[in-house]
Amino acid sequence: MHAFDYSFELEDYITKEDFERLKEFSKDKETPFVVVLLKTVARKYDELRAAMPYAKIYYAIKANPHEEVLKLLIERGSCFDIASIYELDLMLELGAAPDRLSYGNTIKKARDIRYAYEKGVRLFASDSESDVRKLAANAPGSDVFFRILSDGAGADWPLSRKFGAHPEVVFDNILLAREVGLRPRGISFHVGSQQNDVTQWRVALKTCHKIFEEAADKGIKLDLINMGGGLPARYVHPVEETCVYMAEITDYLREFFGVFDEEFPDVIVEPGRYMAGDAGVLVSEVVMIAQKEHEGRPWLFLDIGKFGGLIETIEESIRYPVYTERKGEARDYVVAGPTCDSMDVLYETNPCRLPISLEEGDRVYLFTTGAYTQTYSAVFFNGFPPLKVYVMDDLPRETA
Amino acid sequence: MHAFDYSFELEDYITKEDFERLKEFSKDKETPFVVVLLKTVARKYDELRAAMPYAKIYYAIKANPHEEVLKLLIERGSCFDIASIYELDLMLELGAAPDRLSYGNTIKKARDIRYAYEKGVRLFASDSESDVRKLAANAPGSDVFFRILSDGAGADWPLSRKFGAHPEVVFDNILLAREVGLRPRGISFHVGSQQNDVTQWRVALKTCHKIFEEAADKGIKLDLINMGGGLPARYVHPVEETCVYMAEITDYLREFFGVFDEEFPDVIVEPGRYMAGDAGVLVSEVVMIAQKEHEGRPWLFLDIGKFGGLIETIEESIRYPVYTERKGEARDYVVAGPTCDSMDVLYETNPCRLPISLEEGDRVYLFTTGAYTQTYSAVFFNGFPPLKVYVMDDLPRETA
Repeated sequence: MHAFDYSFELEDYITKEDFERLKEFSKDKETPFVVVLLKTVARKYDELRAAMPYAKIYYAIKANPHEEVLKLLIERGSCFDIASIYELDLMLELGAAPDRLSYGNTIKKARDIRYAYEKGVRLFASDSESDVRKLAANAPGSDVFFRILSDGAGADWPLSRKFGAHPEVVFDNILLAREVGLRPRGISFHVGSQQNDVTQWRVALKTCHKIFEEAADKGIKLDLINMGGGLPARYVHPVEETCVYMAEITDYLREFFGVFDEEFPDVIVEPGRYMAGDAGVLVSEVVMIAQKEHEGRPWLFLDIGKFGGLIETIEESIRYPVYTERKGEARDYVVAGPTCDSMDVLYETNPCRLPISLEEGDRVYLFTTGAYTQTYSAVFFNGFPPLKVYVMDDLPRETA
Repeated sequence: MHAFDYSFELEDYITKEDFERLKEFSKDKETPFVVVLLKTVARKYDELRAAMPYAKIYYAIKANPHEEVLKLLIERGSCFDIASIYELDLMLELGAAPDRLSYGNTIKKARDIRYAYEKGVRLFASDSESDVRKLAANAPGSDVFFRILSDGAGADWPLSRKFGAHPEVVFDNILLAREVGLRPRGISFHVGSQQNDVTQWRVALKTCHKIFEEAADKGIKLDLINMGGGLPARYVHPVEETCVYMAEITDYLREFFGVFDEEFPDVIVEPGRYMAGDAGVLVSEVVMIAQKEHEGRPWLFLDIGKFGGLIETIEESIRYPVYTERKGEARDYVVAGPTCDSMDVLYETNPCRLPISLEEGDRVYLFTTGAYTQTYSAVFFNGFPPLKVYVMDDLPRETA
């Protein structure tokens, strides 16, 4: 049990000016809530465009489907990765063209495929024979990319074997897809969310290249690589600059597919956490500080926990920076949420080092909480309502 | 990796007649949803009353706060354990008297204590000095019981050290409570949810008895024991009959507090899972059956998963019985949910043995899903709506 080194500066996450504005904006609002800084989303999008001009960005809506975020990205020309027909409906309502949508969930009911097809979606992910047959029957002639298994080594939020298939199975499915009248377009992979080891992309791209060659031998020209998500947001560990990270990935593409961007297959990236994570600040209140034993660490209870939106703290996987304006001597706190569920503990194995002067009623700020928080929050757990979200634009404006 | 022995009979969970009625009731409804059989809740309540006539039942609302469930229990004379002011509001709306409510969450904001006090709540749980002082200031003169730490050994959904304090700290808080004008009433403990080892109650009751004696030495007469929840529902393992389980606990009370029920302190129990768990049947559809590798187990994807309400499958802790009407030769399936989250896998280490004849589009039934499911479900994760609930009374009636 070591206390995590919590020596970060406010400015690692937000400018002093923005922080003051955020405090002003949120001072009369009842905690807990997330504030999304739209301009951060815009900046991240622009940085990624600049770093990978050859790639198409499909924003993974599930990371943060707030309307203002989606509208901003629609305006900027982004495409979108949808996980369900509900996300499809949301995008169509907001005016996104169906040819900018990819149905990226490999787990689909036949009627949901049919529904998406009828709405104009023509690009689907697949990883099983059964799904290929359902696509052929319900989305005839559509473009399909095939997901390969990846073990997610090096990622903070690792992958299981849930998605993707072994390359041999994928290859069989590519042949089947052609046979049943679909257009096999290429390969997708996902290196694991919050992936800190860029070389994982090389491993996956090498496999793609091999499948491309084998398909060519069978007369199938694959021309699409969907590199999924995995780009990190900045939690407690500093992450590489986007341009550095992307330059590495571009080098791997060159290694396997050609020296010039024009020689690359079509490249898709699906940033979710990368795009929305850094844009969120969760404002919470200290509910209680308790000493359970005469010796031992104090417990710090916040009004936000695992079921209020911080489910990614399971096994302490994702480490949100916790900021307080209190200063002075620090000590280690176990940090937990407000519900009666004993599992609702955020950081215990790796407690948080925070000032002794912290008091009940204080506000604390959890940075990098723009992705996979609000939509994960439970609908009525222990009676607590789902996490609220506010969007802060140039001028703060409030949304439902 | 061993396949779990899945040899249960339908009638272990539901009568054939009720099952036919449930199928009829649900045949035109879009999965996934939970059907709550009200008469099961009523039966469990009555059984517990009969087995512990000396105890007061405080239903733990958080397990299943469906209005029909709460109304039934209000009518039957139950008291209620609330976890938040939101649950308080719900109970008051439904007409429950505030003197039948216990604010059982030890993590409370000062203003929430004040709010509950103003609404008439006079019974509070506490486990810290800070909370005692807040209670004194915001709920003067109220009854307080003090929670002791328990390690939850033997429970399927174990406790952490989040709730309760060491007996020495508890004792200090009892003295403090008297000093600041509160009425220290007694001790509460929780042996862990889905507790299969009844002797855990003896360990806790022994500690209670010791604190009672020490308090008496200081002139404080404690007269309340809150035994919390922990009574098991029937998942895949058979559980003891309520009356057998309760007879054991009653024996432990006799051992420490007197031969006759009249000599017992006031006894409170807070069943949640016990009361609502068995009453729920979750109806789901097979979305996809996929082979990831040429060798290896097939994956069975349902339209319900961890984020749709089955979060208690984390670490495969709670094992829901999965029932299909298909028969014949069986094989092991890895079972997973429908979202794009790789963590959304239900049973992989211990896969499910189900018929080979299972097909996509089939309905499967997950029994014992009446507790800690619907309210845990995420508000919009991957776009999926929260889990729907229907209540089946003598005549099926639909609710929002």
